[in-house]
Amino acid sequence: MTICMYDLAGADPALRFSPYCWRTHMALKHKQLDFQTIAWRFTDTEVLAPYYAEGASRLVPVLTDDKGVVTDSWAIAEYLEEAYPGQPSLFEGEPGKRHARFIKFWTENVLHPAISRMIVLDIHDCLDPKDRAYFRGSREKRFGKTLEEVVADRETTRAEFLKTVSPLRSVLKEQPFVSGEGPAYADYVVFGAFQWARAVSRFEIVPADDPVNDWRDRMLGLFDAYAATFPAA
Amino acid sequence: MTICMYDLAGADPALRFSPYCWRTHMALKHKQLDFQTIAWRFTDTEVLAPYYAEGASRLVPVLTDDKGVVTDSWAIAEYLEEAYPGQPSLFEGEPGKRHARFIKFWTENVLHPAISRMIVLDIHDCLDPKDRAYFRGSREKRFGKTLEEVVADRETTRAEFLKTVSPLRSVLKEQPFVSGEGPAYADYVVFGAFQWARAVSRFEIVPADDPVNDWRDRMLGLFDAYAATFPAA
Repeated sequence: MTICMYDLAGADPALRFSPYCWRTHMALKHKQLDFQTIAWRFTDTEVLAPYYAEGASRLVPVLTDDKGVVTDSWAIAEYLEEAYPGQPSLFEGEPGKRHARFIKFWTENVLHPAISRMIVLDIHDCLDPKDRAYFRGSREKRFGKTLEEVVADRETTRAEFLKTVSPLRSVLKEQPFVSGEGPAYADYVVFGAFQWARAVSRFEIVPADDPVNDWRDRMLGLFDAYAATFPAA
Repeated sequence: MTICMYDLAGADPALRFSPYCWRTHMALKHKQLDFQTIAWRFTDTEVLAPYYAEGASRLVPVLTDDKGVVTDSWAIAEYLEEAYPGQPSLFEGEPGKRHARFIKFWTENVLHPAISRMIVLDIHDCLDPKDRAYFRGSREKRFGKTLEEVVADRETTRAEFLKTVSPLRSVLKEQPFVSGEGPAYADYVVFGAFQWARAVSRFEIVPADDPVNDWRDRMLGLFDAYAATFPAA
């Protein structure tokens, strides 16, 4: 049985924008595994319901293969590492994985909220019409304001964001990838955040002359420019 | 020849507060190496001059042993790892080191500036009188205001700081140390920042019920409570 990933999609089913799903896309390419993706939308909760305890069935990626089902991008990475030990390693050992966890949380706690404040309205506008009411309602509740208000001053958000990415920028001045000389899972985690923005928004979150942008270009070029072949806004 | 470290000291020569030197203290203990420290003060530039190109002689730690001299805390860690391969590893291999670099830059670019804004006046007050004019002049130039003005609203700085440490807090909910099941160099880098504050200031930068505080206590307890035996404010 082929490896399958349920992957969040926009109105255009080729538009794939979930930062968590992008981690898994890149992890599967890194491990040189064949896979197919299944376009999934926020309101397709019944599709994922069998894989989740009640109520939580709105989370992708979900990965299925002939051995079973794995949910959660980090657990999927750990699973791939274990299930396919002969393929290139995502963490290069336990110490790499333990350290990568910090980068994962930095991405989720710092990068994602900042990027979200720049692109959340663009995400909404890319969605399948059936997803829009759910998305607007849940995100406006989270932010405590309308999506239009959230992004109204995104130039200011960007200025703060560009300060926030300073540890990433400093690392990339010393080594070509977050994980070292070559890309590994920590890169895919951070790249997921940038790919999220690229998919849905024309708002440039990083200036062209930033070392972070050079790294993003390197990431887009990996695996025969795999990520670059997906639709961008 | 014994390993020696030039270590920044306060008016009380036993008071050791440099976050960079604390990395090296802990790294030397981790590697189970005997060493002695030499109390050094900001104005002792002539002492370090032989080890530096002109003008840069105000940076510690500097480590000397029978093989030579190493400056810069990261370079010292790499040196110890290479020169004493039979001792416990600081990075547990190249992937661990490459990932730890991100944590180093996060500490330097995010934690240090925030902590500095809470304790810079306390640092000043701990210094040997001969160091105070240099310290006040250089730091007030950096901040563009008096030391008193910098720390005037440190409760607000702390509230921001406690948000900023969120990736660290998240990691420590999943594993007992930044580096995983046991402490390694990434822990010492982050711990250096906290030990800096502990040495000079009674202002509690982290509340007692924060998982970050539990980790700091674990760090203070390592190597027969080595770090805890040093003077605290």
